Amino acid sequence: MQNVFGAQLEEFSTKVFLALGIPEEDAKVTAHILAQADLRGIDSHGVARLPIYAKRLKLGLINKRPNIKVLHEKAGGAIVDGDNGLGQVVAHKAMRLCLKKAKENGVAAVGVRNSNHFGIGAYYAMMALDEDMIGIMATNTSPLMAPFGGKEPLLGTNPIAMAVPAGKEFPIVLDMATSLVPRGKIEIFARKGKKLPLGWAIDTDGRPTQDPAEALKGTLLPMGGPKGYGLSMMVDLFAGVLAGAAVGGNIGSLFGNMDRPQNVGHFMMAIDVSSFKPLDEFKATMDDYIRTVKDSAPAEGVKELFLPGEIEFIKTKERVEKGVSLNPVVIQNLLTLAQEIDLLESNAAEDDLFV
Amino acid sequence: MQNVFGAQLEEFSTKVFLALGIPEEDAKVTAHILAQADLRGIDSHGVARLPIYAKRLKLGLINKRPNIKVLHEKAGGAIVDGDNGLGQVVAHKAMRLCLKKAKENGVAAVGVRNSNHFGIGAYYAMMALDEDMIGIMATNTSPLMAPFGGKEPLLGTNPIAMAVPAGKEFPIVLDMATSLVPRGKIEIFARKGKKLPLGWAIDTDGRPTQDPAEALKGTLLPMGGPKGYGLSMMVDLFAGVLAGAAVGGNIGSLFGNMDRPQNVGHFMMAIDVSSFKPLDEFKATMDDYIRTVKDSAPAEGVKELFLPGEIEFIKTKERVEKGVSLNPVVIQNLLTLAQEIDLLESNAAEDDLFV
Repeated sequence: MQNVFGAQLEEFSTKVFLALGIPEEDAKVTAHILAQADLRGIDSHGVARLPIYAKRLKLGLINKRPNIKVLHEKAGGAIVDGDNGLGQVVAHKAMRLCLKKAKENGVAAVGVRNSNHFGIGAYYAMMALDEDMIGIMATNTSPLMAPFGGKEPLLGTNPIAMAVPAGKEFPIVLDMATSLVPRGKIEIFARKGKKLPLGWAIDTDGRPTQDPAEALKGTLLPMGGPKGYGLSMMVDLFAGVLAGAAVGGNIGSLFGNMDRPQNVGHFMMAIDVSSFKPLDEFKATMDDYIRTVKDSAPAEGVKELFLPGEIEFIKTKERVEKGVSLNPVVIQNLLTLAQEIDLLESNAAEDDLFV
Repeated sequence: MQNVFGAQLEEFSTKVFLALGIPEEDAKVTAHILAQADLRGIDSHGVARLPIYAKRLKLGLINKRPNIKVLHEKAGGAIVDGDNGLGQVVAHKAMRLCLKKAKENGVAAVGVRNSNHFGIGAYYAMMALDEDMIGIMATNTSPLMAPFGGKEPLLGTNPIAMAVPAGKEFPIVLDMATSLVPRGKIEIFARKGKKLPLGWAIDTDGRPTQDPAEALKGTLLPMGGPKGYGLSMMVDLFAGVLAGAAVGGNIGSLFGNMDRPQNVGHFMMAIDVSSFKPLDEFKATMDDYIRTVKDSAPAEGVKELFLPGEIEFIKTKERVEKGVSLNPVVIQNLLTLAQEIDLLESNAAEDDLFV
C-alpha cells in the first residue's frame, strides 16, 4: 500500500466515527488529533487506535453524545465533566476553555473528570502554540506501575506534555510518560525473546526482573526511581484527586476493562506569554536558547543534538510531504473495522481504505 | 556539641544576617527558611550555607536592601524583579504574591528574575499548604549538566518542587533535581576514592565515566535520559526565558563565580483547591489516596513504603522535638563566620554559638 496523507487519515477516521454515531464536529476533532499523532511519528497513538475506540463505543463504554459541563468555574480555572465522552473531544473542549481563560487572566488551569483515553498529550499542549501561549497537559492512565518500594500497580504511566512557542525556530515540545519505558516496549522484547535491561520492570514480588514475561505479569518502574514515582503521583493528584476523576488503581484500562468506563482525568494549564513579557522579546530569547543548545558540542559518538520535540517536528514535516507508511497489521485491522461498520463491502481490499 | 533546636538556628542566622546589614524582616525570613531545611533533614541547604551567603554579601554580589518590584502584572500572573536580593527574601515575597493572586483567580503564576540561590524549593511550594492551596516552585541553577547527547554544561540541576495538602494525613511534597544525582554526591565518591555507578555523569568528551575525578571535570547526567533533559530545559524556559532571568550557561554559580551576581530565575504557581472542588471532599480523597499507597504491599526486601515528602515529614517531627545534630565541620565554619563578623569574640568556643 502507498503512503497515506494526513488528510486521507482524517477523512477515513471521520467516516469511522460518523458511522459509529459520533456527531460531525466531534468526529472531525477526534480524527484530526489521531492523524496528528501519525504525522508526528507516534504511530501507537494514531489511527492504529481506531479499532479499540470503535469497540468501546459499540459496547456503550464511551458516550457518543456527551453533555460536557463546566463545574466550579472561576476566572482562572474550572472543572470540566466530560460525561464519558471520547477523550479527544473532551480534552480538546477543555483546552479551548483553558486557553480562553489564560488569555484573560495570564494563566489558567482546568481539571477534567469522566474522560477517556485521549491520544497524545502533546496535541493539547501544542494547541497553546497558535495563540502564543505555553501549554501543559497531564493525564492519569490505568495502573501499570507500583509505588517506589511497592509491588502493586497503583499508578499509571501518567504522561506530562508541555509546549513552548519560539520565533523562527521550532517550538519546544516535551511529551513523556513518567515510567522509564512504556509497557509496549516490554511486549516487543517478549515477542523477540530478548532479555530486558535492569531497571525497566519488577515481577509480581517486586523483584527487579530481566524476563519480559515476568515483567508483563509484574509492574513497570518509574523513570529516575523515586523522582518518576513522585511525578507520576503528582499527575494523579492533579488529574485525579483535584479534577475529581478516578485515581490510581481505579482507572479503567482502555484494552483491559471492557466492562466499565475508564473515568480518566486530565489536568491542563495555559500561560499567556504576552501577559508576562513582550512577545517579540520572548521569541527572540527562545530562538537564541534553541540555537545555543543546537550548536553546542555533541558528545563523542553523537552526530547531532536534538531538543525536546525536535525529532517529532522533523518527522511531521517529512510525513506531511511524503505521507505515512502504515504498518501492515494496522492496515488489516482498519480494513476489518471498515467492513464491520459497513463503511466498506466485505470484498473490499486494503487499497479501498483511503481514497 | 549538643543538638541545636530550630529556634536557636533561626536566632543565630538572624544575628548573622543583621550583622551583615540585612533589614530585620528579611533577616528573619531567610533565617527561618534555612532552619526549615535543617529540620527537614536537607542539611546541605540549611545553616551550612551561611558562610557562602555571607561571603557573597560582603563582596557586594548580593544586594542587601533590594527594591523588589512587580512588573507586567495581570490578574493571575506577574513578573517580579528581585533586584539581586537574597534568593529567600525574593522568592518568599513572590510566593506571597502568587498565593494572593491564586486565592482570587483560582490559579496564579509568578516568574522571578534577578534573584539568587534560595535554599530548598520545597519551602516555597509548602507555603501554599497553610492556605489549603497547591504550590509549585521551580528554579534554574548554574550549569552542571549537558544537553542529552552533548558535553557542554548548558543546564542546571533545575529542581522542581510541588506540595499538595491533605486532611488528617501528611501533605505530599515532591522536591527533586532534574539531574539523576547532585554534584555533591559525586564529590563524596571522590573523597572516598569510590567508583561511580554508570549513568551519573560523563567526562569532558561526553563519555560515560565511573571515575569521580573525571566526572567532576565533566557534567552530570539527567534523570531518565531525555526525559530529565526535557524537564530541566522546561524549568529553564519557565524560570529563565519567561521570567527574564539568566538561562542555561549564563547563570552565576553560588560558589564558583565570586565576580558577578547569579541572576537566578524562579517560576512558581499556586492552585486554590476550593476554587476547583469542595475542600473537605478534596482532603478526604487525599487521605484515602495516601492510605491506599501507604498500606499497599511492599516489594520483597522492603519494610515500608514512603510517599513523596513523608521521610522529610517524619524527620521534621523528630528534629523539632530533639533538635538538629550539626556536622562538626559546619559548626567550625559557623564559629569562624561569627568571629569574622564580630558576632563572637576571637576566643569564643563552639558552645558559645547557640545560646
